[in-house]
Amino acid sequence: MSLIVQKFGGSSVANTNLLLNAAKKIIKKYNEGNEVIAVVSAQGNTTDKLIAEAFKISPLASNRELDVLLSSGEQVSIALLSIAIKKLGFPVISLLGWQAGFKTDSNFGNAQIKKVETERIKKEIEKKNIVIVAGFQGIDSYGDITTFGRGGSDTSAVAIAAAMKANICQIYTDVEGVYTADPHKIPDARKLSEISYDAMLEMASLGAQVLNSRSVEIAKKYKVKLEVLSSLTDVPGTIVREMAKNDEIVITGITGDKDVAIIEILEMPDKKGENLRIFSKLSDLGINTDVTQQFINDKTTKNPTFAVKRNILLETLNILKSCCVNKIFYDSKIAKVSLIGAGLKLHPEVAAAVFETLNKAKIKVHLSETSETKISVFIDNQYMDKAVKILHDKFF
Amino acid sequence: MSLIVQKFGGSSVANTNLLLNAAKKIIKKYNEGNEVIAVVSAQGNTTDKLIAEAFKISPLASNRELDVLLSSGEQVSIALLSIAIKKLGFPVISLLGWQAGFKTDSNFGNAQIKKVETERIKKEIEKKNIVIVAGFQGIDSYGDITTFGRGGSDTSAVAIAAAMKANICQIYTDVEGVYTADPHKIPDARKLSEISYDAMLEMASLGAQVLNSRSVEIAKKYKVKLEVLSSLTDVPGTIVREMAKNDEIVITGITGDKDVAIIEILEMPDKKGENLRIFSKLSDLGINTDVTQQFINDKTTKNPTFAVKRNILLETLNILKSCCVNKIFYDSKIAKVSLIGAGLKLHPEVAAAVFETLNKAKIKVHLSETSETKISVFIDNQYMDKAVKILHDKFF
Repeated sequence: MSLIVQKFGGSSVANTNLLLNAAKKIIKKYNEGNEVIAVVSAQGNTTDKLIAEAFKISPLASNRELDVLLSSGEQVSIALLSIAIKKLGFPVISLLGWQAGFKTDSNFGNAQIKKVETERIKKEIEKKNIVIVAGFQGIDSYGDITTFGRGGSDTSAVAIAAAMKANICQIYTDVEGVYTADPHKIPDARKLSEISYDAMLEMASLGAQVLNSRSVEIAKKYKVKLEVLSSLTDVPGTIVREMAKNDEIVITGITGDKDVAIIEILEMPDKKGENLRIFSKLSDLGINTDVTQQFINDKTTKNPTFAVKRNILLETLNILKSCCVNKIFYDSKIAKVSLIGAGLKLHPEVAAAVFETLNKAKIKVHLSETSETKISVFIDNQYMDKAVKILHDKFF
Repeated sequence: MSLIVQKFGGSSVANTNLLLNAAKKIIKKYNEGNEVIAVVSAQGNTTDKLIAEAFKISPLASNRELDVLLSSGEQVSIALLSIAIKKLGFPVISLLGWQAGFKTDSNFGNAQIKKVETERIKKEIEKKNIVIVAGFQGIDSYGDITTFGRGGSDTSAVAIAAAMKANICQIYTDVEGVYTADPHKIPDARKLSEISYDAMLEMASLGAQVLNSRSVEIAKKYKVKLEVLSSLTDVPGTIVREMAKNDEIVITGITGDKDVAIIEILEMPDKKGENLRIFSKLSDLGINTDVTQQFINDKTTKNPTFAVKRNILLETLNILKSCCVNKIFYDSKIAKVSLIGAGLKLHPEVAAAVFETLNKAKIKVHLSETSETKISVFIDNQYMDKAVKILHDKFF
């Protein structure tokens, strides 16, 4: 007998038919003799609709009240999914985040799980109940409801799997697994049968939408075996697990992120130590300034140059201004295309092949970053889809 | 400084404009220097829509899961109302039923409040917050969410007012107060400035929709002064309070209930004691068999005859069958029209006038009941509106 945690995203429970479909996936595992905990998101675009309602009243709604509002979405889906499972004749109980023991900090809208108190879940499992848990939500030490931010139900599922020492955590979604590139854009994209936590982390943080980064970090930390698979088909998905170095293929996948800006500091302030101050402030913001090649405006430059997500461009410019940086060049129509793999620093021929391939297609690389697990190039965002395609053709 | 509890029903918070309107009512009292707690229902027909969603999956949904589902309705409205109050610049916090301390039994769908633990509410009032509370919902001793049944938000409001020793509990609704008859049907209906708890209880249990009976019972028990008033106008409503006998006018109002059936037992079982068993079982069901005049099928009858709400007709017939009653006449197209007042047994002329008025209009009375506080007549339900009108003309 195994303990299985399953997670169904909003698109997998969006209507009555899909709810019954998810119910059957759950029951199948239960019928095979497993203990099953299913974590559920809000139905379809419920969360967006609730946010729109709130913003109609006030665009400055407090995060605490938004969390009360948004957490109602999963409340509806756990109740309906439980009703569906009961209708099919199986014992089931639904638990809200606070009932399932998700204790968090008070960072409303983006709360961190501090621990999962599993007494109630264990009691229900002992009673042979299928347990349906509201994802995305918890409770802080004041007894207030908190939510975990976009993709937070993945985090809920992995955190429960870790706390309950589950044998596997299955993430049901609308694709059949993790692909070498976005299968909606690259028809040749291949599904991976396995991927390491590290490579998955790179994929997640670089714009692959299948899993949120925080959930992969927790999975890695607690060695939770994940499976990403489709709720609509019955084929095996992609297993995310710890892998020995030599298990890994060199290149796992290719991702693209259209919403990037690059910044070049044209004149550093004179004051001593200011340089360090700038980079430590940027690093606090999570901005990686470790870039290896810099070609801005067709020239090689030695000026400090780095990339940021477009939504923090203004914030970054403000920081630079506060540090007395007065001459800046920036370009906010940039895409970041990344090859994810393992041991990439040991294989410089991969980076060379990336540059050569893009060069042949006349796509200029403004900036690049290389690490053990990825090679990222920053290009004009109009060429992103093309770049992903030709690189995918080259490497897969 | 007073402590005021306000309650806003679903129709008073159904959209953004109405939410802002309710927010202003709350802020007005707060600005006058009062402490304010507002209890809110789910928006508009949210509860009906959620029930329909559940029934689409299964008409046999468990009450526990229905309570998880339905309680999401008030969760949305407290969050939105709090966002509206904050937007208008006032300090506010929302609390769900379990956060506000509503401890109930485990009778899902129709739970009874056992106590209200007011620590959290008091803490928020001390912080000068306006407190917005989700009506209709609480938590049982296992930590599961319960709901109080239709009209349950009235009960929430009165229970908080009692526990907090509020100076007044204002029930905002879509009519301006308690009327001598349903103002939608009787244009001449008069708004009462005051009414006693007992008369209000009769009105509520006899089909006047303004307040649910349980809330009036709690108000009477803890001497909570109620005001029923409109959320859309600014005029004083009807005060419900303890009244000395000679304060009361003889007749307070007239109500009609279309959903009634009358049952005549044509042959009582022979067995000794069976008679008593029948009536004690009926009494357990809340059926009053104390009827004073009986004219069934145009004949005066001495057979045991009584009225029941149409929705428990089948249950009642089952009980009678289980008690070996095999010959029964019933008519399920009956309406109950009631005059509510005080000291009615001391004023037999009132009952006489009721019968005379109906007789003149050729409306047959099949059955009647008289108590200190009401005179009810049972007539064919097609004549209900007419009977209410002519009695209202006669007495007001």
